[in-house]
Amino acid sequence: MNNSPWLDEVKWDANGLVTAIAQDEKTQRVLMVAWMNREALQLTADTGIAHYYSRSRQKLWKKGEESGHTQTVAELRLDCDGDVIVMQIAQAGGIACHTGRESCFYRRYQQGGWQTVDAVIKDPAQIYRA
Amino acid sequence: MNNSPWLDEVKWDANGLVTAIAQDEKTQRVLMVAWMNREALQLTADTGIAHYYSRSRQKLWKKGEESGHTQTVAELRLDCDGDVIVMQIAQAGGIACHTGRESCFYRRYQQGGWQTVDAVIKDPAQIYRA
Repeated sequence: MNNSPWLDEVKWDANGLVTAIAQDEKTQRVLMVAWMNREALQLTADTGIAHYYSRSRQKLWKKGEESGHTQTVAELRLDCDGDVIVMQIAQAGGIACHTGRESCFYRRYQQGGWQTVDAVIKDPAQIYRA
Repeated sequence: MNNSPWLDEVKWDANGLVTAIAQDEKTQRVLMVAWMNREALQLTADTGIAHYYSRSRQKLWKKGEESGHTQTVAELRLDCDGDVIVMQIAQAGGIACHTGRESCFYRRYQQGGWQTVDAVIKDPAQIYRA
């Protein structure tokens, strides 16, 4: 039995998930946003490596398990209403996005549309080759 | 009729909402996370002032309408799968949280629990007095 009152303080949604933001501990850039279930948050705290829950694959997901782009967690914070976590992380490879970019937030609103403003650092075909 | 293809590119959830992160444009601190519906995002882009959708009150919410702690938006970004927005903002009063703190993320995980590590800048009773 786990005795984890800190996990009970998180306001899990109807699907048992919480929003998790990964922020680069050095540059403070927001790199990605994903979801965690209870197991993912517990594992993240225990191992110091970011774990998420993949809604599309419906399973626990250790970020970087395929790409090698793991995230080492320096700090976890919870917001006032308990439904969002911000992590300070060190991003292996300097790439968080599956498109091969540093951050998932590579589109900026300008001239009435979302414009891609960040370059691809590494071809995803190279990142995810079998 | 609005012709807003950029709004169609957002992956609205089943409730017509998208997650919105407000990040201080100077310090890069994540100040708060809330939700936007289509109208809120359109208004945010049109006015340059952050608007959200309050799920608890089920209505459009101009941040700071009661507290005066409005947010002036310098940049909007959308993530790779289109379901999260990051805003670069200037926070009026230096307080984003309803608890009177700079950021909603004032609890840090340490020693097995969420510890409050940030001070209250202004008493909420003073912020929200009638």
